[in-house]
Amino acid sequence: MEDRLEKDLLGEKKIQNSAYFGINTQRAMENFNLGGKIVNLNLIREIALIKKAAAIVNRDLKEMTADKADAIIRASEEVIEGRFDDQFSLSAFQGGAGTSTNMNVNEVIANRAIEILGGKKGQYTLVHPLNDVNMSQSTNDVYPTALRIAAIRQIRKLSNCLADLQEELQIKENEFSNMIKLGRTQLMDALPMMAGQGFGAYAKAIARDRWRIYKVEERLREMNIGGTAIGTGLNARNKFIYEMTDVLQNLTGLGLARSDYPMDITQNCDVFVEVSGLLKALAVNLMKISNDLRLLNSGPRGGIGEVILPEVQAGSTIMPGKVNPVIAEMVGQVSMRVISNDTAITLASGSGQLELNAFTPLIAECLLESLELLERSVTIFKGKCIKNIKINEEKCRDNLESSTALVTALVHYIGYDRAAQLAKKALRENKTIRKVLLEEKVLTEEKIDEIMNPYQLTKPGIPGR
Amino acid sequence: MEDRLEKDLLGEKKIQNSAYFGINTQRAMENFNLGGKIVNLNLIREIALIKKAAAIVNRDLKEMTADKADAIIRASEEVIEGRFDDQFSLSAFQGGAGTSTNMNVNEVIANRAIEILGGKKGQYTLVHPLNDVNMSQSTNDVYPTALRIAAIRQIRKLSNCLADLQEELQIKENEFSNMIKLGRTQLMDALPMMAGQGFGAYAKAIARDRWRIYKVEERLREMNIGGTAIGTGLNARNKFIYEMTDVLQNLTGLGLARSDYPMDITQNCDVFVEVSGLLKALAVNLMKISNDLRLLNSGPRGGIGEVILPEVQAGSTIMPGKVNPVIAEMVGQVSMRVISNDTAITLASGSGQLELNAFTPLIAECLLESLELLERSVTIFKGKCIKNIKINEEKCRDNLESSTALVTALVHYIGYDRAAQLAKKALRENKTIRKVLLEEKVLTEEKIDEIMNPYQLTKPGIPGR
Amino acid sequence: MEDRLEKDLLGEKKIQNSAYFGINTQRAMENFNLGGKIVNLNLIREIALIKKAAAIVNRDLKEMTADKADAIIRASEEVIEGRFDDQFSLSAFQGGAGTSTNMNVNEVIANRAIEILGGKKGQYTLVHPLNDVNMSQSTNDVYPTALRIAAIRQIRKLSNCLADLQEELQIKENEFSNMIKLGRTQLMDALPMMAGQGFGAYAKAIARDRWRIYKVEERLREMNIGGTAIGTGLNARNKFIYEMTDVLQNLTGLGLARSDYPMDITQNCDVFVEVSGLLKALAVNLMKISNDLRLLNSGPRGGIGEVILPEVQAGSTIMPGKVNPVIAEMVGQVSMRVISNDTAITLASGSGQLELNAFTPLIAECLLESLELLERSVTIFKGKCIKNIKINEEKCRDNLESSTALVTALVHYIGYDRAAQLAKKALRENKTIRKVLLEEKVLTEEKIDEIMNPYQLTKPGIPGR
Amino acid sequence: MEDRLEKDLLGEKKIQNSAYFGINTQRAMENFNLGGKIVNLNLIREIALIKKAAAIVNRDLKEMTADKADAIIRASEEVIEGRFDDQFSLSAFQGGAGTSTNMNVNEVIANRAIEILGGKKGQYTLVHPLNDVNMSQSTNDVYPTALRIAAIRQIRKLSNCLADLQEELQIKENEFSNMIKLGRTQLMDALPMMAGQGFGAYAKAIARDRWRIYKVEERLREMNIGGTAIGTGLNARNKFIYEMTDVLQNLTGLGLARSDYPMDITQNCDVFVEVSGLLKALAVNLMKISNDLRLLNSGPRGGIGEVILPEVQAGSTIMPGKVNPVIAEMVGQVSMRVISNDTAITLASGSGQLELNAFTPLIAECLLESLELLERSVTIFKGKCIKNIKINEEKCRDNLESSTALVTALVHYIGYDRAAQLAKKALRENKTIRKVLLEEKVLTEEKIDEIMNPYQLTKPGIPGR
Repeated sequence: MEDRLEKDLLGEKKIQNSAYFGINTQRAMENFNLGGKIVNLNLIREIALIKKAAAIVNRDLKEMTADKADAIIRASEEVIEGRFDDQFSLSAFQGGAGTSTNMNVNEVIANRAIEILGGKKGQYTLVHPLNDVNMSQSTNDVYPTALRIAAIRQIRKLSNCLADLQEELQIKENEFSNMIKLGRTQLMDALPMMAGQGFGAYAKAIARDRWRIYKVEERLREMNIGGTAIGTGLNARNKFIYEMTDVLQNLTGLGLARSDYPMDITQNCDVFVEVSGLLKALAVNLMKISNDLRLLNSGPRGGIGEVILPEVQAGSTIMPGKVNPVIAEMVGQVSMRVISNDTAITLASGSGQLELNAFTPLIAECLLESLELLERSVTIFKGKCIKNIKINEEKCRDNLESSTALVTALVHYIGYDRAAQLAKKALRENKTIRKVLLEEKVLTEEKIDEIMNPYQLTKPGIPGR
Repeated sequence: MEDRLEKDLLGEKKIQNSAYFGINTQRAMENFNLGGKIVNLNLIREIALIKKAAAIVNRDLKEMTADKADAIIRASEEVIEGRFDDQFSLSAFQGGAGTSTNMNVNEVIANRAIEILGGKKGQYTLVHPLNDVNMSQSTNDVYPTALRIAAIRQIRKLSNCLADLQEELQIKENEFSNMIKLGRTQLMDALPMMAGQGFGAYAKAIARDRWRIYKVEERLREMNIGGTAIGTGLNARNKFIYEMTDVLQNLTGLGLARSDYPMDITQNCDVFVEVSGLLKALAVNLMKISNDLRLLNSGPRGGIGEVILPEVQAGSTIMPGKVNPVIAEMVGQVSMRVISNDTAITLASGSGQLELNAFTPLIAECLLESLELLERSVTIFKGKCIKNIKINEEKCRDNLESSTALVTALVHYIGYDRAAQLAKKALRENKTIRKVLLEEKVLTEEKIDEIMNPYQLTKPGIPGR
Repeated sequence: MEDRLEKDLLGEKKIQNSAYFGINTQRAMENFNLGGKIVNLNLIREIALIKKAAAIVNRDLKEMTADKADAIIRASEEVIEGRFDDQFSLSAFQGGAGTSTNMNVNEVIANRAIEILGGKKGQYTLVHPLNDVNMSQSTNDVYPTALRIAAIRQIRKLSNCLADLQEELQIKENEFSNMIKLGRTQLMDALPMMAGQGFGAYAKAIARDRWRIYKVEERLREMNIGGTAIGTGLNARNKFIYEMTDVLQNLTGLGLARSDYPMDITQNCDVFVEVSGLLKALAVNLMKISNDLRLLNSGPRGGIGEVILPEVQAGSTIMPGKVNPVIAEMVGQVSMRVISNDTAITLASGSGQLELNAFTPLIAECLLESLELLERSVTIFKGKCIKNIKINEEKCRDNLESSTALVTALVHYIGYDRAAQLAKKALRENKTIRKVLLEEKVLTEEKIDEIMNPYQLTKPGIPGR
Repeated sequence: MEDRLEKDLLGEKKIQNSAYFGINTQRAMENFNLGGKIVNLNLIREIALIKKAAAIVNRDLKEMTADKADAIIRASEEVIEGRFDDQFSLSAFQGGAGTSTNMNVNEVIANRAIEILGGKKGQYTLVHPLNDVNMSQSTNDVYPTALRIAAIRQIRKLSNCLADLQEELQIKENEFSNMIKLGRTQLMDALPMMAGQGFGAYAKAIARDRWRIYKVEERLREMNIGGTAIGTGLNARNKFIYEMTDVLQNLTGLGLARSDYPMDITQNCDVFVEVSGLLKALAVNLMKISNDLRLLNSGPRGGIGEVILPEVQAGSTIMPGKVNPVIAEMVGQVSMRVISNDTAITLASGSGQLELNAFTPLIAECLLESLELLERSVTIFKGKCIKNIKINEEKCRDNLESSTALVTALVHYIGYDRAAQLAKKALRENKTIRKVLLEEKVLTEEKIDEIMNPYQLTKPGIPGR
C-alpha cells in the first residue's frame, strides 16, 4: 500500500496509507518518541464517546448533515469497541495538554468515517478532523471531560472491590472472633485481643476508604464540555452545551453535570489531587494491612507466626520449601506506586498556568494507573490472600502466655509503680508474671484467675470488678 | 532552689525543683535532645483538656475523691490557659508514640495539683501522674483524641479564612468584570476574556477547598478515648467511655463522637492522610493562583504586566525601586511546605504496625503546622495581596489587540485550515490579523467588527450568528 | 499444540506447550495479574547475561557438563538478542523480590536449552531451571547484579546525551553572546544581560548533571553476585565468585567489581536512592530550563516573547495558527515523572527488612524508567528544541529599554535611597528612567551614556569608573 | 524608650527604639506573620560573616573609611557571637528570596555599628544598611553563599557523627561475630548468619553515607559572591570578588572557591537537591537500620526478641513494665522528616525562574533542618542505642534450630525439588528438618552434622565439600 501525503500549518508529510491517524498524530509520534508508556486506552475510548455525542448533538442542531454525523457516530463506536486500538500509540508523557491525543482520535474517526462514506483515507473534504469531528469542541474541554468520565467508571469498579474486601475481612473477623492472641504496640508485647478484632479494625479502615471513594465521584461529575479553549465557550452554542450534557448522561448512564463555571475546571486540577489524595489514604491502609500480615505471618518458625497466609507460589530459587508472602508484597508495592503517582499528580496540578494546565497528560496517566492498579490488586488481595488466611492458634497461645503484659490488669489494685516492679522482676528472672505474683504473694491463685483472665481483658472495664 | 529526687522503673534522677515536669519528661528531654521544633502547644492544651474531662468523669463515677479531682481540674485549666507553657519543651520528633508528651502533661498537672492541695512537687502520693491524672487512660487513646480536637479547631479557623478569601476573589471578579484581556493557554496567546473571569475561576477553586475542609471535620469527630492501650478498653469502664464523650462535647462545643470500634482508630491513621491530602489540594490551588498573579504582575515593564499587585515592602538590596511579589511568593512557599508535610504524614501513617502507629508525633507536628500555616498565609494573602490588586487596563488592551487569536472567531466561516494560514501570515509579516483579513479580502470591515468583537468572544456561541 | 503438565511444591499445573516459561512463571502471571507495566526488558537481558556467565563458570569449574553448559549459554544468548521477548510478560509490580522474574528467565532458558539438546520442553531432567540454570545463584544476588548492570549501561547513554545537550547550549551561548536583553529576578525587571549568558548558565547546570551521573557509575559497579540468598555465599564457592566477576567484566566491558561485603548490598538499597536523587537533580534542572524557555517564548505577542522556540506541530484543535512549546512541556512532564519515581524508589528502599529488600521490583522498574525517559527526552529536547531556538532581538530591546532597572548603575553615585525615588517617579509618571534623570538634572546626557551603557552593565565592576 | 521613625520607598514607619532592626525588617515581620519557624540562626551568622568580610575588603579597596569598616566588622562579630539573636525573628517561609533576612542583618549591623561610632540607632548617615553594610553585594549572592557555608559546616559535623556511628557498628560486628542466628528474607526464615554480620552490613551502608556526605562538600564550596543581583557582577569590582574569596577562606578555614560562572549558581539550585538527595539516602539507611532493630528487639517474649535494645525510659502510661524502642523510633521519624524536607527542597528548586530562585528561604530552612536533625539523631542513636545493644543468644539459638532453612545445604546433594519436599514435610508434620532427614533416611547422622553445621553455612562454599 502506498503512502498518502497530508499537510498542515508546518508543511507536508507522508503518512502510511494503512494508518487511520493523520499528520498531526504522525508529528506527535516523532516529537514525543519516548518509548515506554502509551496513552491509556480507557481515556481514548471516552474521548471517542465525546466525539459520538458531539456528532449526535450537531446533527440535531443542524450544524452537520445526518450522513456525515452518522458516519462519525459509527466510526466513534468502532473506536470505543477497541477496533482501532493499534492506531493509538502516542506517549503518555506527551506535551501539548492532550491536543495530540485529541487529534489522534479526531483523525482516526475522520478517516474511518470517510471510508464509511465511501471515500479514501485523507479525503478530509468529506469528513474533516477539526471542522467536523472536533466541531464545537476544543482539547481543553474534551480531554478533561473524558478523563473525568474514565475516572468515574474506574472509581465505581474500585468501590465495588473495596466492598468485597471489607466483607472478606469481616468474615475473618467473625471466623477468628474467639481466638485469643497478644496485641502489640510499637512492636512490643501489649494487651490480649481476639485475632478477629484485628481483622475488624482492618475492615473498618477499608470501609472508610470505600465511603471516601464512593463519595468523591460527585466531584468528578462536573464537566467543562462546551467551554472550548479557555472555558468561555467561544464557538460552542448554549444549546450545544445543554444537549451535550443530556447526551453524555444517556450514553454513559452516569450523573454527569454541566459546570456552571467552565473556566474554573478548564484551568484548575485540584479535583484530581483530591481524588489521588484519597487513593493515597487507601494505599496507606493497604500498606498497613499488608505489612501487618507479613509480620504476623513471619517465620514460619523463627518469627511471630500467628497468621498463616495461603501459599500461592514457591518462594526461593535457592532455599527449598521457602514460601513468601508475595501477594501482600505486591499490594505493598502497588501502594507505593500509588503514593508516587500522587507526587506526579500534585506536581502537575500545581504547575497549571493561567487559563490551562499544560500537564494534564501526566495527571491522566497517573490517576488512571492508580485506579486500575488498586482495583486489580485489591481483588487479588482479597481472593488470593485474605480469603484463605488461617490462624496458628498454638503460636498465638504461646506468645500470649509468655508475655508479662497481663500485669496491666492489676494497676487498679496495686498501682502502676508496684505493677511495673513485678513485670520487671518477671522479665529479669525469666519467669511468668503469674509465678512472680504468687512468689511475691501479691494475689492468691483464685484472684489471679479472676483478674487476669485474658478473655476478660479484651473488653472494656476494670477486670475483677 | 534545690533539686528533688524522682524515681521510675530505670532508677533515680534529680529534677530541678522549679520544674513541674518529672522524671519521665526529664528522661525524654535527654533522649530526644534534637534541638529545633518542640511539641505544638495547641496539642498540649487539648491533652490537658482531656485530663480535665477525665477528672470530672472519675469524680462523678466515684473513682476519685472530689478534692483530688478538683485539684486536677484546676491544674488542667491552668495548663490550658498557657500558664505552664515553658514546662513543655519536648522535641516534636520524639519516639514513643506520644507517651512522653502525655507524661509531660500528666506530670505537670500532678505537680501543680499537689501544690493546690498544699503539698510539694514530687509528693505523688497526693496526686499521682499515672494512677490519678492518667486514670482510665492510655497515651494511645488520649493522644489521637487530642490531635483530632486540635485539628478540628484549626480546620474551622481555616475554613473561615477560606470563606473570606473566596469572598475577596468574588469582589475582584465583579470589580474587573468589564476589563477585557487576553487569555493564555500553555502560556501562548489564546482567546479574550474578562479580567474578572479569571478571579471568578480562582474563587470557584477556593470554594471547593472550603467545602472539602468543612466536610472533613466530620471524619475527625470520632474519638477512641476509652479504648486505652490497644482499643479494647481494658481499665476503662463503659460508663467512663460514655461520660467522657459527653463531657468532651460540653467542654469543646464540638460534635465529638465515641468510635464504635476504637481499635480501628488507635492503629489506623488514614484519616490524617485524608485531611492532609485535602490540604494538599488547597496548596495546589494556592500555588496556582499565586503563580498566576506573579506571572500577570511580571514586569512592570518587561513582562506581562496586566495585574498590579500591591507594594508591601522594598524588594532589593541592590536594585533601587524594585518591588517584588513577596506575599504571593510566601503563599507559594507555604504551599510547598504543606505538600512536603503531606509526604511526612503519608510516610508516618503508612508505617503503623499492628495495634499502634509509633510515629503519631510526626503526624501531629506536620498536620498542625500545615493547618496553622495555611490559616495564616490565606489571611495575609487576602488582606495584603488580593484585596488591593489592580488591573493595568492599558497593558491588557495592548496585549489583546496585538494578538492573532481572534481569528478563532472565523473558523465557522472559513474553516480551520484557512484561518490558520491567515494567522500564520499575520505573525510572519508582523501585521495585525485585522489587517491581513482586509488585505486578503476575507471579510469586509463591517463583518470583521461584527464577528471579531472581543467582548462577544468572551461568551458561549458562534460569533456573528 | 497440547498442554504439558508441570509440577512444583504446591501441585500440578497445565502449561501451554508453546510456552518456554514453566510453572513458576505461570503461577506468577496469575498471582500478579495487574495489567499495565511489565518487567523492563533490559533487566531481563542482563539476567540472561548472568545466566550465561554462570554457565561458563560452572563449566570451567566442572560443576556442569560442557554440553549442558553450552546449551544454557546459547539459550541465554538468544534471550539477550530478544528472540524470546514475548515470554516475559510478568507485572513490573510483582511481589517476591524478583524471584518470579528470575524464575521466568531460568525457565525460558532451561526449556530452550532442552530443545537445543534435543529434548522437549518440560524435560527438566535434561536441564533444570534451578539445579542447572540457577546453579550457585539466588534471586537475591542475580537480580540486584542485573539491575546494576542495566543501570550502568543506561547511565552511560544518558551521560552522553547530557554532553550533547551541554554542547548545544554552549553553541547557543556563543550564538547569542551579543544579544542584550533584560534579566529578571522574581519575574520582575532586573539588570541587563546577554541572551547567551542565560544559555551559558543552563550549560553549566547540565555540566554538573553530566558529571554527577558519570561519577555515580562507580557506586553501581559493586556486585553481590555469589552472595546467594543473604550475602553469606552459601552454595557458591569462592572460585565461582571470583570467576563470575571476571566473566561478567569480559562480557559487559564494564569495570564491575565483587563486593567485599555482599550481605550489605543484598539488603541495602541506598545506592539506588543515591542514583535516583541525582536523576532528580537533573530533573530539577530540566524543569527549570524548560519552564524558562516556555516563559521567554510566551506570546508570541501578548507575552515576553524574547525567545522563539522552533515550531514542531500545530498547537490547538480550536485556535488556528496557535503553536505551543510542546517539546518543553514534554521535558517538564518527564521531569515530574522522574521526581515521582524517586518517591517510589525512596519508599521501596526504606522498606527493606533484615537480610533483603522485598520491594526491589518497584525500584528496578522506576529507576530504569527514569533513566530511559531522561535519555530520550534529553535527546529530543536538544534536537527538536534547543538546536533551533532563535532570539527575537527587537522584543529584547523593547523590554530592556522600557525598564527602569538601569538605575542600579547609579547607586555608587547617588546612593540607594535617591536612586529608588527616581525609579519610582519614572514608574509612576510612566516615563523612561533616562527622561527622569534629565528632568531632575541628576546627570548630564553624556554621563548617562557613560554610566548606563547596558553592555557595560552585563559585566562586573562599577559602571563609569 | 521612645519609638523612632524610619522611612523607605513606601513611606514611614515607627520602630521601637530598642530594636536594632529597621523599617525593612519591620515590614517583613508584618508581611510574613506566619507564626512558627523562624530563620535558622546558623544562616544568620554566616550572613553576618559575609558582611564582616565585605567590610574588610571594602576597607582594603578604599571604598569605605577604616572607621566605618571597623565598626561594621565589630558589629558583625557580635551578631556572629549570638549577642543579637533576639533581633532575628522573621519567618523561615518569608517571600522575597531572602531579601528580608539580608536586610535584617544589614539593619542590625548598621544600627549596632552606628552605636559603636557613637551615634544613635536610625542615624543611617553614619552607617547605611545598604550603601555601607551591603556595599558591593546583593541578597542574591550573599544569601546562597551564606547557605553554602552554613551547609558545609553542618556537613562536616554530620560526617564526623557518621564516622562514630560506623565505628560503633563495627564494634558490635566484632562483639557479636560468633553469635549465630537465623537470617530472614521477606521476613521468612532463611539461612543462618552471625549476629555480627548484620551489624557489619549496617556499618558498610553508613560508611557509604559518610563518604557521600564527605565528598559532596566540594560541590558546595563554589560561591557566587560578587555576582550581585543576577550573577553579572554589576556594582562589584573584580578586585572585590577575588579578595572576598580570600577573606572568606581565611575567616572560615574552608576551601571556598569563586564560581567561574556566578549567573549559574545564582539561579540554579540543583546542588541543594543533590545534597538533600544524599541526605535522603542516609535517611533510608537509618530507617532500615532502626526498623530492623525494632523488629529484632520485638517482644520481649512474644516477638523475635533476638536483639535487646537498651532501656532509656518507661514506655507506657498504662502497661507497667513496658519499655519501647523509643530511640529507634525517633531515628525513624527524623528519617521521614528528612525525606519530606527533600520534597520541599525539590519543589522549591524546580520552581526557580529565569535569573533567580524566589524560594531559596524554603530550601535553606529545610536543608539546614535536615542536616541538624540528622547530626543530633545519629549521635543519640549511637550513644543511647547502638552502643549498649545486647544479643539474646538463647532466643537466637531457639529460632535458628526450629527453622527448616538449613535444608538449603542439601541442594547440592539431593537437588532442589527433593529438598523442598523434605522441608515441606517438616513444616506440615511439625518436626525439625533433622528429624525428617533421619526418618526418611536421606542422610546419616554424621553426614547431617557435617553438611548442616550452621557455622559453616554462614560462609561461601558448598557445605560438606
